[in-house]
Amino acid sequence: MSSRFHIKRLCIIGVGLIGGSLARALRETGCVETIIGSGRNRAHLQRAQVLGVIDEYELDMAKAVRNADLVVVAVPLGAMPACFAVLKNSIGDNTVITDVGSAKQSVIDAMQTAFGELPKNFVPGHPIAGTEKSGVDAAFAELFSQRRVILTPHAASDSRAVKLVRQMWEHCGAQVLEMEAKHHDEVLAATSHLPHMLAYALVDTLARLQDRREIFAYAAGGFRDFTRIASSDPQMWHDICLANRESLAQMLGVYITDLQRLQQAIETNDSEYLKTTFTRAKTARDQFSESS
Amino acid sequence: MSSRFHIKRLCIIGVGLIGGSLARALRETGCVETIIGSGRNRAHLQRAQVLGVIDEYELDMAKAVRNADLVVVAVPLGAMPACFAVLKNSIGDNTVITDVGSAKQSVIDAMQTAFGELPKNFVPGHPIAGTEKSGVDAAFAELFSQRRVILTPHAASDSRAVKLVRQMWEHCGAQVLEMEAKHHDEVLAATSHLPHMLAYALVDTLARLQDRREIFAYAAGGFRDFTRIASSDPQMWHDICLANRESLAQMLGVYITDLQRLQQAIETNDSEYLKTTFTRAKTARDQFSESS
Repeated sequence: MSSRFHIKRLCIIGVGLIGGSLARALRETGCVETIIGSGRNRAHLQRAQVLGVIDEYELDMAKAVRNADLVVVAVPLGAMPACFAVLKNSIGDNTVITDVGSAKQSVIDAMQTAFGELPKNFVPGHPIAGTEKSGVDAAFAELFSQRRVILTPHAASDSRAVKLVRQMWEHCGAQVLEMEAKHHDEVLAATSHLPHMLAYALVDTLARLQDRREIFAYAAGGFRDFTRIASSDPQMWHDICLANRESLAQMLGVYITDLQRLQQAIETNDSEYLKTTFTRAKTARDQFSESS
Repeated sequence: MSSRFHIKRLCIIGVGLIGGSLARALRETGCVETIIGSGRNRAHLQRAQVLGVIDEYELDMAKAVRNADLVVVAVPLGAMPACFAVLKNSIGDNTVITDVGSAKQSVIDAMQTAFGELPKNFVPGHPIAGTEKSGVDAAFAELFSQRRVILTPHAASDSRAVKLVRQMWEHCGAQVLEMEAKHHDEVLAATSHLPHMLAYALVDTLARLQDRREIFAYAAGGFRDFTRIASSDPQMWHDICLANRESLAQMLGVYITDLQRLQQAIETNDSEYLKTTFTRAKTARDQFSESS
């Protein structure tokens, strides 16, 4: 980690759980002079200022990014194209841009569309961190501590820009890795997007049963843990589904096939299949527990 | 809760997480004079004695239940038929029998087969509590505190026996309810058995992907919570699947249909369906959080 990381003016567009936690974490490092927040909702930005998450706010995004050294776009994926269109006409030549979107190829495509080419100062990123909560009130400085952040620089990404974004996350306590955007999207479809779909679908399936009140009354700790992520922001996950449509639909297909096979094993008393599958899963999960 | 609950001799067959936690909880109440453990594994029983969970142990189940006021069968569902066969030839006329199996109709059927009729002192039960851990080392006295226990007495169950079992659980801090065995099995298929299948299947699906090491390396907190129950005992869940085959296969069918519909919505950019489903699920999950 370089000690020379210093930002005079940081602009965070979208001061929610992720943007707000990033502001809090960077403020604690003392490496950032001024944090300016921007977004569509004045009340949210005022709240962020009251909480001390940002120093000032500016609803006009074009004004907000003026003279910024670094702009972090932390809006939902669906709001990025409009955001990039504003940046195209207002961003300074030396301002580095990064984002925190949970799918990366769609962000790169949106940037390409907005700018006509991929700006050399644009470094797509994704902190693998979050909670089922959302909004700046849920933000906390330690969110990224010991978490992984994946950067997916494009061919023309400037190495100075990549270094700055990397340093920013490292100063938040994160471990930074780089990979291809497409590969990122496949990996995250499996480990994050698919589980969210399964949790949403389970709660929704149960909620639509006739005796839903009784059903939930008898749910216990396992159910609580299993479905916690179904409390996540619906708009955000709507956007992620559409942004990572191909990889996610493919993973869902693989999973559904496996689940149908499991259902068949239960129906046919296939003792061996059940034991083998559960044991293999437990072994993998226990290994994951130990290593993470 | 009656203050007259008192047990001279309690026999717990299967001193694992549930049986051991029950022993610990009852010992703290001071309402039980002697707790005798039984089971197939001497080392496990010795361990339970060393930990102070049981007072003594007896590998010979017929001897263990002799003179017991109350026998709690806490072995995996698949081991119950053999266990009941021994009880048939050794249990005293006044000894109350209960169990802790996660599926109830299969336990009742096994008892009917072993005894030729349902004993009046038999009260099937199911504490809705547990962790992903197993074994007596994981047992703790508070496991049942503020949890629900479902009793599914049969038509010939003696009211004195039902009262004794109810008091036992209430003294562990649990809330006791009664319902039909078949209804219990349907409710638990939805809230417990189905989520366990989904978690096992997810971890297994990912574990069988080519880049499994990398996949798990990028899994974060949501994944950890979501898959915790996949660390549960495979043998126990194998037994539950087969014991509650019909209800579980049916719930899996409903879920798979819903998941296929979700996959289709993702593939076809069905924005409205995604938003509606996720929002409905979040609302239900948030309500569940508040009420539990």
